[in-house]
Amino acid sequence: MAQFADPTLTRPAYDGSVTTATTPAHSTAEDLLAAHGPVLDEAAAALAGRTYYSRYPESPSPRVYGEGAAEAGLAAYDGLLNSPYAGLEGQPTDGTSVGDEVSPYGPRLGVSYPRLDVDAGLAAALEALPAWRDAGARVRAAVCVEIIDRINKRSFEIANAVMHTSGQPFVMSFQAGGPHAQDRALEAVVAALVEQERVPASVVWEKPGRDAPIRMQKDYRIVPRGVGLVIGCNTFPTWNAYPGLFASLATGNPVVVKPHPRAILPLAISVAVCRAVLAEAGFSPALVQLAPDADGGVLGAELALRPEVAIIDYTGGPGFGGWLEREAGGLGKSVYTEKAGVNSVVVDSVGDLRGALGNLAFSLTLYSGQMCTTPQNIYLPRDGVETDEGHLSFEEFGSRLSAAIERLTGEDTKAVELLGATVNDGVRANAAGLAGLAAEAGGTVVRDSRMVAHPAYADAVVRAPGIVSVDVSREDVYTQECFGPVSFLIGTASTEQSLAQLADTIREHGAMTAAVYSTSEPVLAAAREAAAEGGVALSENLTGAVFVNQTAAFSDYHGTGANPAANAAYTDAAFVANRFRVITSRRHLPA
Amino acid sequence: MAQFADPTLTRPAYDGSVTTATTPAHSTAEDLLAAHGPVLDEAAAALAGRTYYSRYPESPSPRVYGEGAAEAGLAAYDGLLNSPYAGLEGQPTDGTSVGDEVSPYGPRLGVSYPRLDVDAGLAAALEALPAWRDAGARVRAAVCVEIIDRINKRSFEIANAVMHTSGQPFVMSFQAGGPHAQDRALEAVVAALVEQERVPASVVWEKPGRDAPIRMQKDYRIVPRGVGLVIGCNTFPTWNAYPGLFASLATGNPVVVKPHPRAILPLAISVAVCRAVLAEAGFSPALVQLAPDADGGVLGAELALRPEVAIIDYTGGPGFGGWLEREAGGLGKSVYTEKAGVNSVVVDSVGDLRGALGNLAFSLTLYSGQMCTTPQNIYLPRDGVETDEGHLSFEEFGSRLSAAIERLTGEDTKAVELLGATVNDGVRANAAGLAGLAAEAGGTVVRDSRMVAHPAYADAVVRAPGIVSVDVSREDVYTQECFGPVSFLIGTASTEQSLAQLADTIREHGAMTAAVYSTSEPVLAAAREAAAEGGVALSENLTGAVFVNQTAAFSDYHGTGANPAANAAYTDAAFVANRFRVITSRRHLPA
Repeated sequence: MAQFADPTLTRPAYDGSVTTATTPAHSTAEDLLAAHGPVLDEAAAALAGRTYYSRYPESPSPRVYGEGAAEAGLAAYDGLLNSPYAGLEGQPTDGTSVGDEVSPYGPRLGVSYPRLDVDAGLAAALEALPAWRDAGARVRAAVCVEIIDRINKRSFEIANAVMHTSGQPFVMSFQAGGPHAQDRALEAVVAALVEQERVPASVVWEKPGRDAPIRMQKDYRIVPRGVGLVIGCNTFPTWNAYPGLFASLATGNPVVVKPHPRAILPLAISVAVCRAVLAEAGFSPALVQLAPDADGGVLGAELALRPEVAIIDYTGGPGFGGWLEREAGGLGKSVYTEKAGVNSVVVDSVGDLRGALGNLAFSLTLYSGQMCTTPQNIYLPRDGVETDEGHLSFEEFGSRLSAAIERLTGEDTKAVELLGATVNDGVRANAAGLAGLAAEAGGTVVRDSRMVAHPAYADAVVRAPGIVSVDVSREDVYTQECFGPVSFLIGTASTEQSLAQLADTIREHGAMTAAVYSTSEPVLAAAREAAAEGGVALSENLTGAVFVNQTAAFSDYHGTGANPAANAAYTDAAFVANRFRVITSRRHLPA
Repeated sequence: MAQFADPTLTRPAYDGSVTTATTPAHSTAEDLLAAHGPVLDEAAAALAGRTYYSRYPESPSPRVYGEGAAEAGLAAYDGLLNSPYAGLEGQPTDGTSVGDEVSPYGPRLGVSYPRLDVDAGLAAALEALPAWRDAGARVRAAVCVEIIDRINKRSFEIANAVMHTSGQPFVMSFQAGGPHAQDRALEAVVAALVEQERVPASVVWEKPGRDAPIRMQKDYRIVPRGVGLVIGCNTFPTWNAYPGLFASLATGNPVVVKPHPRAILPLAISVAVCRAVLAEAGFSPALVQLAPDADGGVLGAELALRPEVAIIDYTGGPGFGGWLEREAGGLGKSVYTEKAGVNSVVVDSVGDLRGALGNLAFSLTLYSGQMCTTPQNIYLPRDGVETDEGHLSFEEFGSRLSAAIERLTGEDTKAVELLGATVNDGVRANAAGLAGLAAEAGGTVVRDSRMVAHPAYADAVVRAPGIVSVDVSREDVYTQECFGPVSFLIGTASTEQSLAQLADTIREHGAMTAAVYSTSEPVLAAAREAAAEGGVALSENLTGAVFVNQTAAFSDYHGTGANPAANAAYTDAAFVANRFRVITSRRHLPA
């Protein structure tokens, strides 16, 4: 998931190297092109080199975002509550509204949203398409940067909306829901721009001939595929929606955003910004529309099957994701899904036990393990592991990991700033069921998932990470995703078996992340082979301020597309290249 | 379809600018890398600029391919007839054989091929994968160039095999089945290489921090998707198979080639060359295997559903193509199809009537209209058109086009060198049914499809182009593909209606090509809009030695992927970017 900082341990310093744009409030496409050309070039260079790059500062400090920004964002959020959402003016609606979001922290949001009139909305989207298509890739990219910059200015407002729909702790809501999501959005814009600009606008083609060459002028025109549909998820409403939204929009496709019914507000705000900036730049706001639905509704499926929809981006459960791949994919639509998996860690030997345990415990703790990137399966030889603190038995390693979790989560007031709140009943049931799970699996509860009392929100159900030990033979238990604060410590015969099991389970069941701890170069090399076999990215010996759950825009791919957890990655060429087509026109030129 | 020269009108001169490689017969991967590095760079530059580039000379002249090359190729082909095909040694087989090819010119080929043991073949392919994957993109590309160079050396042998499976005339068999197919193969290799090389092998990522930066090393590894399946067609067995074959192979995927049951031999020879070169370079020949099937067999469908198969390239009828898109696409496999469409021409006004008619007549004549790029629907105002020879009525334009066809095909001996032979009973029925078609459509036979006697092959059924005029209202007649030497002259109310009909029918029914004739810049601009709406490439006012059926590798896309005729194009980034994935491994570096 998003790159993030640990708010309880370090207050990330603003590095001063990135700034947000200061374009005038009302900008023509040409103004935006001039204002944002440099950032497009910088970001394209970073993406090509996969070096560090960030446009949107991740620190919520007033030194970065300004005195009073946090308070103003909170006030803006509060102002939205218990009201009809007014930011979608001009969207065709059937006159009814929808919306029943309840914060995982307790309060009901009370925001209602106008339902989209699907027929009229899709017609408006297609009507808006030609002008957006003909604006060209670079104008589209510049408009998108302006949208993201303007979204950035509302980061605190969005952070509160993300917090109270996903249950993320506040600083994570700010970082993952704000600047990190914005960086991923910019990455998608730039990846799309680079891909489109690889096609020359025009060429003189000259074929040698006997007497004179044959000369032709050939013009190449980028055209979009149709309407892009983005189906959002509950846990990362903005971070997981922006890449598809901006990849489709930047390649010329109008976009309909169908948010998760329990996480509408962050995307409503985002869509409202898109529409405002598009209109200011002289384009139709119908290029981005919000299609909210009630919990249990089927609007996502209905939209997915509409002939106008050519591209679908989805994050969520494997049931609907698989349906989209089969049904919409089978209709020839491009379907990009991120579903579920069994993220895995192999512990072979540890050179810095304290660092490793702290790092791993933090990965398990953050947002109560409700990240699609949180480790679930930790493979360890039954005979234990060598460490810089001596040999640890399997049980001792479990105790030490448990103690590291205790250090992070033992005190309720600090713990909630890392754990956030559980997002739904499924997670709560998983967290509450460790004893039964252990009994069923023939294992033991290494650490139960502790119930944490939130000092400010009495109704929030907050859970610290729990760990169950099982034998490697119990694939029936650990090869399915057990979403939330539940991990398995899996006893194997050897690291060789651990790595084989990592590769096999990921190839079959998918994973967004994998990690290895080893002091042995041959083992690390074998782990890289296993990761390649399993089709998963590998983090090696993480002990510091980078966590396996983190991926950094412009450098780390999020997902690989090479295992069942996700059929695409943020953001590689495959994620953008199929969102547009090239139409040639050619004619003779005098020899 | 392929770029080609008119053998009866001009003997294309060898331009001297391209040569085939002269690497030693047995080359290591390193030798090949050294030998073919320059061509990879040249071809990559041409592809980026979409300028003219050809590695493989299209002239079958002895001055280019050497004295006796044509005769030696024919002898090699003759030597294959009436025998078990011996070039697939080492392929796992169940011991049975298959093969019942009959030349459209009459003779039975009598070649039998060992059936592939599918389980053992796919197992061997997967076993061969890691070494090929780990060889790296550039070594793979160099090996592929060597394969194509070696295929080039067998161009005359392959030309005879293409001629006697597809029914193409000989020079076209040589050009489209040989050098033009080879150029398309090289284009796919280079597109794949460029796409893979856009991902850096390694980067040091350095994030500014308060005290010291966070530094990580990140390595990016290209991994293939699985096994590529290439399903060949009857009419262009090599030209339509090579792009998918080489795109998959160059990105690290083993490939199984399932040729059309009536066009096995050209791909058997091609696969044999692949296997020989791979083995010489130290790789497993199981990286490319041939899976021949009997006419009416279901091996293609069986292979398509195998879990080992991750990528499918298909050229052929829309029935099986649609099934592949739905069933295999719905399973998450990448499916690239080229099916059928209604290629369209709009005649508005003509500045060079003689040139336009000659060009159009040639496009209709070549290979008896059995190209997937041959125009079918010619839209013309009922009121006729202005030309440099004065106003022509609708009927006069039809007569003049008919006369132009007569000039090309009136004399049997010359005609067969353009027409070739009809490939199957469906084409023969279409060609024989013009009177009935016209009666049913309420139109008239502008020109019947003349039966041509082949001077050398008495059993060949050779047909010259026929034309039926219909009214634009009879969409039931002209919006389906009528494969073979049948075109419709469609009377419209205006050019505006012609262009709207072009866009609408292509958006709904697909097309590989479109053309327009007009002396008016606004009409040409409107035609470009219509082509963008329909998602089809446009040729404007072709009068010379370039035909609407032609696409040139490295410059023209073949198909667009933007209409139902084909969901992909030769060769854009979208055609290659999804054939591999990137696996990252990352680790801390000292600050």
